[in-house]
Amino acid sequence: MRRVAARDASRRSPNPRWKRMAVIGVGLIGGSLALALRRRRLVGEVVGVGRGRKNLALARRLGIIDLATTDPAEGVRDADLVVLATPVGALAEVTKAISHVLAPGAVVTDVGSVKGSVLRDVAPLIPAHARFVAGHPIAGTEDSGAAAASAGLFEGSRCILTPTPRTDPGALRRVRAMWRAVGARVSEMDAATHDRILAVVSHLPHAVAYALVNAVTATQADALAYAGGGFRDFTRIAASHPEMWCDIMLANREAILPAIDATLEELSGLRDFIEREAGGALVEAFGRARVTRRSLRPEKGRPRGKARRR
Amino acid sequence: MRRVAARDASRRSPNPRWKRMAVIGVGLIGGSLALALRRRRLVGEVVGVGRGRKNLALARRLGIIDLATTDPAEGVRDADLVVLATPVGALAEVTKAISHVLAPGAVVTDVGSVKGSVLRDVAPLIPAHARFVAGHPIAGTEDSGAAAASAGLFEGSRCILTPTPRTDPGALRRVRAMWRAVGARVSEMDAATHDRILAVVSHLPHAVAYALVNAVTATQADALAYAGGGFRDFTRIAASHPEMWCDIMLANREAILPAIDATLEELSGLRDFIEREAGGALVEAFGRARVTRRSLRPEKGRPRGKARRR
Repeated sequence: MRRVAARDASRRSPNPRWKRMAVIGVGLIGGSLALALRRRRLVGEVVGVGRGRKNLALARRLGIIDLATTDPAEGVRDADLVVLATPVGALAEVTKAISHVLAPGAVVTDVGSVKGSVLRDVAPLIPAHARFVAGHPIAGTEDSGAAAASAGLFEGSRCILTPTPRTDPGALRRVRAMWRAVGARVSEMDAATHDRILAVVSHLPHAVAYALVNAVTATQADALAYAGGGFRDFTRIAASHPEMWCDIMLANREAILPAIDATLEELSGLRDFIEREAGGALVEAFGRARVTRRSLRPEKGRPRGKARRR
Repeated sequence: MRRVAARDASRRSPNPRWKRMAVIGVGLIGGSLALALRRRRLVGEVVGVGRGRKNLALARRLGIIDLATTDPAEGVRDADLVVLATPVGALAEVTKAISHVLAPGAVVTDVGSVKGSVLRDVAPLIPAHARFVAGHPIAGTEDSGAAAASAGLFEGSRCILTPTPRTDPGALRRVRAMWRAVGARVSEMDAATHDRILAVVSHLPHAVAYALVNAVTATQADALAYAGGGFRDFTRIAASHPEMWCDIMLANREAILPAIDATLEELSGLRDFIEREAGGALVEAFGRARVTRRSLRPEKGRPRGKARRR
């Protein structure tokens, strides 16, 4: 494990809330959390764990982590905070690799976009002397890797924790405080509710964006040169990481499948209105969607102008 | 027709390219074009024509138009430039109402999002002594009305003209110069090509966004409170004007129907991969979409950060 000089030693708190944080998966979310905690002097030393040496080296150069290793067991040794920030499909494997070396009282939390599968497949792997809290910060962009990390990513975002009756109240309190400290609004709910909500507000739009981009490529690839801001906004999430999103879709498929079915049904309905030239029915359907979409406003901090063109 | 004092008389050019411009439909596009031409002193007097007195009064207060009338025939009298900027479905009716009073040599152009129907239904209504050029500035937001107009809307956007062998070359040249002057990159193509392209890069995403929002409302309306930036970006266009978009969908239905069918097919395919847990096929499909979406970059002038969260 190579040590790197801290960029800004004066930022080290003499008594941080977490002495040593291990981040497994130093990508957009894991890296941003490390940066955000460092900036607030809430963490002493940060160990980055990952499979790619290049990304780890970059994370060190960017001041996201102090130490780097490709071995999860080595990385979590003596850590009082372990953040599992790999793609959802890799969580169980990585947890198996660290369970025998977790420090007594270590708080382990994850940032996975699906929570039912985490409670089912990951939570039972945590040994009794450590404490697991399942969490999901709803933040991110279509970019990935340490290069995309930013200390302000969670400011004003939401974070959902899904405690169970077996969750340690003290660990829950500390994880909640951690997310609040980096700017997130924290809610708690059961995992099934979380997965049902995320299926429609996040997973479904990703599936639809991927489908739409492929439909355009298959039928009218030459049209893409004329894509305006509306098309770009609409399909931005189709640039998201394929493996990560495959994991999410499979892990949450029970909630995603009915959401896709409902969308197929609505879109088929609009298709039929258009074919039958049923103007009144179209205006009614579009108007209903408009009322719903407008009810989401106001959105704070959104830039206007160029980005909003279609 | 009430006259209003020009806000900034010094901006009047002594010899503008267009002496009198009539804008029928002083909304986002018509209003922005008037503002943009005024700012560049390319137009003398601007007459606004509309059905809603409130919107016309607002357009006068905002300095978009000098004169206002609800009577199209009165509005176009003595105009050397007539811009038809109503919803596509109203174009034929409004053209019938002005055809007998168009000045000799008057250039008439439109901004409709569908061009085949305009050439079929509107162009034949223009009298021989006037000149019609069909056009479509690809710009806009989900907002509508004079309040949404801005002089910079067309900067860096695309504008497509769809001349036919019957289009007057001089009028085409002048309309092309007008769009270039307000910052648009102008292309020319036949109407069928235009409609096929716009069906996939604009009309299809609108249909899908409307369908998705209604699917979420129908199944998980309570989830909307957790919508992040990704969902907001994705569904922004579902706040677009229902009647305007109904008109567009119906006028371009021959091109939109196959685009919707291709999307239904792609989305059904993804659905089946998820149900069968076909991870490899999912990653392949998502990866293909990602490559396509990334090929659209770089996009100039896009803000990053908050707006790009999901």
